[in-house]
Amino acid sequence: MTITLYDLSGLNGRRFSPFGWRARMSLAHKGLEAEAAVELVRFSDKHKLAFSGQNLVPVLVDGATTVCDSWEIARYLDDAYPSTPSLLGGETGEGGARLVAAYVESQLHPLVARCVVADIPNVIHDDDQAYFRESREKRFGMTLEEIVANRDETKGQLKTTLYPVRTALKERDYLGGSTPNYADYAVFGAFMWARGVSEFKMLEQDDPVFAWRERMLDQFDGMPRREPGYPV
Amino acid sequence: MTITLYDLSGLNGRRFSPFGWRARMSLAHKGLEAEAAVELVRFSDKHKLAFSGQNLVPVLVDGATTVCDSWEIARYLDDAYPSTPSLLGGETGEGGARLVAAYVESQLHPLVARCVVADIPNVIHDDDQAYFRESREKRFGMTLEEIVANRDETKGQLKTTLYPVRTALKERDYLGGSTPNYADYAVFGAFMWARGVSEFKMLEQDDPVFAWRERMLDQFDGMPRREPGYPV
Repeated sequence: MTITLYDLSGLNGRRFSPFGWRARMSLAHKGLEAEAAVELVRFSDKHKLAFSGQNLVPVLVDGATTVCDSWEIARYLDDAYPSTPSLLGGETGEGGARLVAAYVESQLHPLVARCVVADIPNVIHDDDQAYFRESREKRFGMTLEEIVANRDETKGQLKTTLYPVRTALKERDYLGGSTPNYADYAVFGAFMWARGVSEFKMLEQDDPVFAWRERMLDQFDGMPRREPGYPV
Repeated sequence: MTITLYDLSGLNGRRFSPFGWRARMSLAHKGLEAEAAVELVRFSDKHKLAFSGQNLVPVLVDGATTVCDSWEIARYLDDAYPSTPSLLGGETGEGGARLVAAYVESQLHPLVARCVVADIPNVIHDDDQAYFRESREKRFGMTLEEIVANRDETKGQLKTTLYPVRTALKERDYLGGSTPNYADYAVFGAFMWARGVSEFKMLEQDDPVFAWRERMLDQFDGMPRREPGYPV
């Protein structure tokens, strides 16, 4: 059975969607990433996703099955590949994982955007420039440059907002315990987004979240670390 | 083996510590709450806790074992009573549960305080009044009345901050799935604190978190609902 992951890409195949990273790490967790095919989708060729009935990455195609949305992809993988390590921890673990993912989306992603969004034009194709700038400036109600103008202050807010992650990492190497699970991938996706597009330093080296991110970059024989990106 | 839970109390044995509620619900989850002894501790008799080497509730004494801190109590109960339903979901679930608990402590508790703290003098003993007012006014740097002055606005912030909980509850009755687990008790403790001390309505009736709280009040044959409190 051939698996294909549709993922966002910038110049030279650079993949920086936080949700794409959730799906990619989830596939790797299941031992399926290395042999999965990848279809890279630029902002300007979202028509490639029309078959899925919507226009957002990631989309997973596994044989006759199409799954949209990184959360649904994780659920699908746990259901379809039950003999591989669990991503979500089963019925009793899913709620906590969903809460963590929603915390990342509602609290971390907006802060990451306010640190790196103005650097994204440097890593996307010429055909994507106008769409990207217009859509993001409309969403935030200001220019890309204004969005990131106070990013040193935003970085302080990010540190505060990461308190629950930092606390959970005090007693264990990963949110998933001795190995990562979906909660780790949800948080990590935010950092892979930043790493792929900006040289801005999101974390101080003495933050335990920094050391956790290093461990995450080493997962799966260093697959995420080999991905093109800026030094973190 | 006799289990004793030391818990904070106000007038007439009213128990309103959010951390005390985590421990109480955890004991009930393990089927141990009904027969556990309770030692009620008012603010002015924290000396009753001196044996534990610190002065914060909850403290659990199980035979020769003394455990302080609601998180450590949950870990202890899972370790000591492995044949009863798990609170934390084992090694792979603990990190997510700890993250949820830290989210509650850092984000929900401060907002609950800013809604109800000025009502607490109504439910505590005369001997506790001066200590309570002085310690809380020092912590917040303003009077109790000033802390809650904008509580209608704070309620809106609480609604926003509950987004991760609301999202996780979309697909399941409890954060723990079809039955609650520690993540539910951590969030619920914040609401039992409010319910015990204030008539201020923390949630709108159309919020899915409201319906979840109703289900939580019905747990363990309605044990939390029978606890004295204001209508929610």
